[in-house]
Amino acid sequence: METDVNKLLEKAKRPSEEAPGLHKKYRGKVEVLPRCRIKDMSDFNIWYTPGVSAPCRLIQDDPELAYEYTCKWNTVAVVSDGTRVLGLGDIGPLAALPVMEGKALIFKYLGGVDAFPVCLDTKDPDRFIETVKILQPSFGGINLEDIAQPKCFEILERLRKECEIPVWHDDQQGTAAVTLAGLINALKVVDKRMDEARIVFLGAGAANIRIADVVFKAGADPKKCLMVDSRGILHEEREDIQGDPEKKEKWHICRTTNGGHEKGDAPRALEGADVLIALSKPGPGTVKPEWIRRMAVKPVVFACANPIPEIWPWEAKEAGAAVVATGRGDFPNQVNNSLGFPGIFRGTLDVRAKTITDEMCIEAAKELAKTAEDRGLSEDYIVPTMDEWEVFPREAAAVGSKAVAQGIATKAMSKEDIFRGAEDIIREAREKSRLLIERLSG
Amino acid sequence: METDVNKLLEKAKRPSEEAPGLHKKYRGKVEVLPRCRIKDMSDFNIWYTPGVSAPCRLIQDDPELAYEYTCKWNTVAVVSDGTRVLGLGDIGPLAALPVMEGKALIFKYLGGVDAFPVCLDTKDPDRFIETVKILQPSFGGINLEDIAQPKCFEILERLRKECEIPVWHDDQQGTAAVTLAGLINALKVVDKRMDEARIVFLGAGAANIRIADVVFKAGADPKKCLMVDSRGILHEEREDIQGDPEKKEKWHICRTTNGGHEKGDAPRALEGADVLIALSKPGPGTVKPEWIRRMAVKPVVFACANPIPEIWPWEAKEAGAAVVATGRGDFPNQVNNSLGFPGIFRGTLDVRAKTITDEMCIEAAKELAKTAEDRGLSEDYIVPTMDEWEVFPREAAAVGSKAVAQGIATKAMSKEDIFRGAEDIIREAREKSRLLIERLSG
Repeated sequence: METDVNKLLEKAKRPSEEAPGLHKKYRGKVEVLPRCRIKDMSDFNIWYTPGVSAPCRLIQDDPELAYEYTCKWNTVAVVSDGTRVLGLGDIGPLAALPVMEGKALIFKYLGGVDAFPVCLDTKDPDRFIETVKILQPSFGGINLEDIAQPKCFEILERLRKECEIPVWHDDQQGTAAVTLAGLINALKVVDKRMDEARIVFLGAGAANIRIADVVFKAGADPKKCLMVDSRGILHEEREDIQGDPEKKEKWHICRTTNGGHEKGDAPRALEGADVLIALSKPGPGTVKPEWIRRMAVKPVVFACANPIPEIWPWEAKEAGAAVVATGRGDFPNQVNNSLGFPGIFRGTLDVRAKTITDEMCIEAAKELAKTAEDRGLSEDYIVPTMDEWEVFPREAAAVGSKAVAQGIATKAMSKEDIFRGAEDIIREAREKSRLLIERLSG
Repeated sequence: METDVNKLLEKAKRPSEEAPGLHKKYRGKVEVLPRCRIKDMSDFNIWYTPGVSAPCRLIQDDPELAYEYTCKWNTVAVVSDGTRVLGLGDIGPLAALPVMEGKALIFKYLGGVDAFPVCLDTKDPDRFIETVKILQPSFGGINLEDIAQPKCFEILERLRKECEIPVWHDDQQGTAAVTLAGLINALKVVDKRMDEARIVFLGAGAANIRIADVVFKAGADPKKCLMVDSRGILHEEREDIQGDPEKKEKWHICRTTNGGHEKGDAPRALEGADVLIALSKPGPGTVKPEWIRRMAVKPVVFACANPIPEIWPWEAKEAGAAVVATGRGDFPNQVNNSLGFPGIFRGTLDVRAKTITDEMCIEAAKELAKTAEDRGLSEDYIVPTMDEWEVFPREAAAVGSKAVAQGIATKAMSKEDIFRGAEDIIREAREKSRLLIERLSG
């Protein structure tokens, strides 16, 4: 057993050990390449002056044509100020660039979306908002990323109101969609019902608050659920939260959850709980095995801190967890944002939805869960893996057709048509990527 | 002759006729694709969480490492507010997007530079400057484009002072470098000397003012030269210019050129002139054949307005011009910014120059001129064409080694090494582009 744990620890360390050398080797994860023909240099007379003037004039007369004549239809900015990057905290915009590039890579490879890393050198939310608004002409959507709380709430809210293109914060809606998918299937594996589940949310950051919101919208009973922050269980007598304008989302949780008016610390909260959803301090050791032992029968544990989960999966299992999920790709059940945003944005862009609603995210989660179920659930398989690529067009179709149903899509397309279109675009992105990657190794 | 002119007019219209349909077919000119290996999904553990944390931490400790671990080293923002796009005027940032995408396409195909179109939705110079400064972390350089005068001067000046990465305005330094290259060779073709040439600059916009500056720095005698704006020849008694803070660059021209204190209109200015460099109102008919007839023997005519030159080349030739250059690729002697910026940025990025000096641009011009001369000059061949791709690494080497000599390069490289490195990067960009383009037609 000792050797096994050592082996697993070794394995868990490997990506961090390999990353600097490989980052140096490739000097960037994405590049900009032609998507139009260049049969010879005379084609530049069409793509640039003098020919380009004609589409410019047409767009000037009808701005909608920008979606036909330029790459705006498929381009998303991955925007961060680097104030809360993975588990690293406020490392600044330059040090956040490797993450945003990685995100852009995944956007294209899994969702066929052209994403560009935009790291902003400002910590001021007003300037952040102003900058994103000014950047809109080049983009068809905005993916916010790794922004500190509480300003991330205000930034998201204002940008959604003030922008013409859809804006979302992946750490909020994206994480929520994928976590919900995992939760739906984990409950199936342990044969429990969503509306009866006692769920403990450990960590009251932007991501977990949003997960709770979406999980409640999707059918869990908030009165049966608890959220725990660094001072303990949230309840209506938490005076450190009440009245603080920076904590209004947290106060909403105080008021809507915890029907039993429980107080106390995390281990106390977990007594008899069916599910732990932890997005708190990177581990190991943030969640102790003895806490898991106090949970209800067949407990479900989501230990999603990055880069190290709050408790190692093998420890949680040893302590009795029936299903364990983490944020890491080197263990089973990766609750991985990469399962969400590529498909969700694909669907959003393809129907030109004006925004991304929670309902669209819940549809994505259900489709994600169903994709895994279609393959056969088990304690080690509650969410699809990234290489099951049918996930992404399926999500796109679910999200896009929900947008159509909600009346926020600019293009009224059938679910079938969205699926086929998304499948084509993603296949093409994969094949082009393959061509380039084969060259690298060749 | 009538038929010939009609044929040429037909030909000149073709790019504009084909452009809308072809723009619609490809829906954008560039896309974002992987530049790193993805052998399987486990590689995302390196490119994204958890592995990516390691290079993030290293960059946090040493910001210089961003140039090693990310695509910053090779990424340029093509930034415009759309206030002065080609010959179209203030068409706004959205309608400018096709041009900025075209520029990004050319940056990669000719210079191996990853450029991204950034169209800014603001007309306020302070907000423009603020936005570009905030965008710096993702980029290794800034290419300003198609910004109205006079704010383009202030924007460039302030950004060059306040940014950490090199900033240039292609309509100023870029146009100047390529025009100078053409001028050097045109004078060789007609066997005249730069320091004796009577040059008339028609049009006093940002581009022509900058061309004049650089041409004077490169050896022309300003006292022998004239600039003409819509009110006529610039001279020291032009009270409409003197004292206007928005016209200080123009006033400088009033004071330094026109040693003979000449006054009058454009045809008057051209009497006896050796060279006309027109960057004024799109033609045809802005410059009349009879004006050319009044010039000195073997006159050189640069009619560079976009998309239609001030005078059609065949008209200028009929009127006696020995050498005619335009901005269009469908005629000989295209004085084409695309011959400049890809190679100049290649060299700048490769030695990590802190800025792009006029001296670096003059070196680029000389190397560009020499590349054409090496192939054999003629009245129809004073500048290389875009498909003579050795131009770009040669320019890169000239520019980069000048930066090293001026002490503004971060990496001290030999001219030979810069050339070889640039050649490799550009060849790779070409070959990758070819792979993708072959797929399109296949």
